[in-house]
Amino acid sequence: MGPHPAVAAIRLAVRRVLHDILNAQPASPTPTAPPTPPERPLVLVACSGGADSMALASALAFEAPKLGIRAGGITVDHGLQSGSDTRAEDVVLRLTALGLAPAESVAVQVGRSGGPEAAARDARYAALDAAAERLGASAVLLGHTRDDQAETVLLGLARGSGIRSLSGMAAISGAGGRYRRPFLHLDRQTARKACLVQHLPVWDDPHNTDPAYTRSRLRHEGLPALEKALGKGVVEALARTAQLSRDDADALDAWAAQAAESVCDAAGLLECAKLYALPPAVRRRILRRAAIEAGAPAGALFARHIEEVDRLITGWRGQGEINLPGKVVAQRQGGRLVIRQG
Amino acid sequence: MGPHPAVAAIRLAVRRVLHDILNAQPASPTPTAPPTPPERPLVLVACSGGADSMALASALAFEAPKLGIRAGGITVDHGLQSGSDTRAEDVVLRLTALGLAPAESVAVQVGRSGGPEAAARDARYAALDAAAERLGASAVLLGHTRDDQAETVLLGLARGSGIRSLSGMAAISGAGGRYRRPFLHLDRQTARKACLVQHLPVWDDPHNTDPAYTRSRLRHEGLPALEKALGKGVVEALARTAQLSRDDADALDAWAAQAAESVCDAAGLLECAKLYALPPAVRRRILRRAAIEAGAPAGALFARHIEEVDRLITGWRGQGEINLPGKVVAQRQGGRLVIRQG
Repeated sequence: MGPHPAVAAIRLAVRRVLHDILNAQPASPTPTAPPTPPERPLVLVACSGGADSMALASALAFEAPKLGIRAGGITVDHGLQSGSDTRAEDVVLRLTALGLAPAESVAVQVGRSGGPEAAARDARYAALDAAAERLGASAVLLGHTRDDQAETVLLGLARGSGIRSLSGMAAISGAGGRYRRPFLHLDRQTARKACLVQHLPVWDDPHNTDPAYTRSRLRHEGLPALEKALGKGVVEALARTAQLSRDDADALDAWAAQAAESVCDAAGLLECAKLYALPPAVRRRILRRAAIEAGAPAGALFARHIEEVDRLITGWRGQGEINLPGKVVAQRQGGRLVIRQG
Repeated sequence: MGPHPAVAAIRLAVRRVLHDILNAQPASPTPTAPPTPPERPLVLVACSGGADSMALASALAFEAPKLGIRAGGITVDHGLQSGSDTRAEDVVLRLTALGLAPAESVAVQVGRSGGPEAAARDARYAALDAAAERLGASAVLLGHTRDDQAETVLLGLARGSGIRSLSGMAAISGAGGRYRRPFLHLDRQTARKACLVQHLPVWDDPHNTDPAYTRSRLRHEGLPALEKALGKGVVEALARTAQLSRDDADALDAWAAQAAESVCDAAGLLECAKLYALPPAVRRRILRRAAIEAGAPAGALFARHIEEVDRLITGWRGQGEINLPGKVVAQRQGGRLVIRQG
């Protein structure tokens, strides 16, 4: 008898990613280098002790040895709740019990920049990056599920800033593709079930049910109400929207990068007539890139800013300088668009 | 003292669209033709008697004469509720009282194709098209608001079929750009307020609160829950997403149309190697177009179909024919992709 379907599903998802990581390994040393015994690659799992990442840790512990991969685990102690250090040590014991080595807890200091969720995330990824570097890991697996992806798409939708913000989390991200999300096509229920049938204790982060957090409100109220109105397929539809939006945004960015060169004059200035001839979606991406290159912070540059700059091209009636975030100004001069730090 | 801000807002929205319609009028007859007195253009409003379209009718009645435009109104009797004919006559009286002429009621037979909402919509637009033709109208104004747009985006999101389905309703649509939606950037509350302060009686369609209808569930449960989780800006963010997605989808469709020619061989067959070199977003659009041209019904062709055809290009391992809706088959033959009716 094979494993429970939920366990089979999480293992298959991890196995696929491990194969992919092995294929992406650097080639063996050149013949002229002295022969060294090739070290077995190390793959880490980032584990909070919650159901998703515990399921991921269990699947990594099962699959990695069969492929000659060392499996380790890191848990991040955000220090945001009393007793978080004890809990982190508890997660380390559970990871060790699964056979993961090294299994470590890393304490971080969470700042305030960008709100509580963003600050915790920044601190967490910095700690995971540092741990991966220190331990020489080939990859870090993250337990985000299709449900997390659906929530991320809705959070992006609420920004209303276009299809890039609808594209959710990537299956592969970070420097050199370090981060991998094997469960992006699995639902949260499967991960939870896999923990249950494997008798893995899981820890439910109180933040996940705290209505002070946007994501928590979305998970427990927004998304269920949307499912009630639109039907059960909403989570899957949102996850598919993420993938399609990501591909579309990539293609349009590539087009804009290419077109940006063709609309510059010999002095490197943007020619308004050539910009005008481009589709609006491509033109606005070029304007956005130019504003960021001139020093406007990407996060503060909204669609309405770009629309105003775009009117220098499409609705020219002698407007003056347009002020953009980061003290960047855009103006039209003799058929050229000049975007520079003011 | 000027009009109430809500009345000023609806009038401004209509005035802008009327100016646009005047600018789009065909040029005056050529000098060789016998001089005929130019007829004043006719603009119709489609009015259900609800707050949105009553506000629209009142603004059209106010603005049209100032621009030398004749203003008329049409109400569609869907015959779905007993007494709908009496109500339609009542709407005609209200339109007449506003000064609209002609003001007419048109009865339609609602079919069953595509579900109750789609069938009612199809019947309504067919009737409006016929009325516009018969009366020689230059345009038909529709009362859709930013709230309707937000709902439409969420309905598209639930399909999970990509950014075209996120692009909501266009400000201009239909044959020759007949339909115009002046209120697409106004909220429903403004339209309702404008009716209130102008003492216009409005009729609340019971369908709009009937939980049997997806849009009604979305309006009264889904969207409010989403606003509670994500904040009050959700409706605006969804409407902005519609506009950005529309522009992006247009640009990518244009790219795909152009690229489709460059990837065909002399016999007009798609070359797999050239398809492979395109960005996935462009390649999948070409495959989708080719499937539709071969006879696959657009509405039955889902993302997963196109992904399977795409694997003939990106994951070729000798697969056989792929069956698509409408008895269309796709197969790879000697480096060419053949999509045809099976």
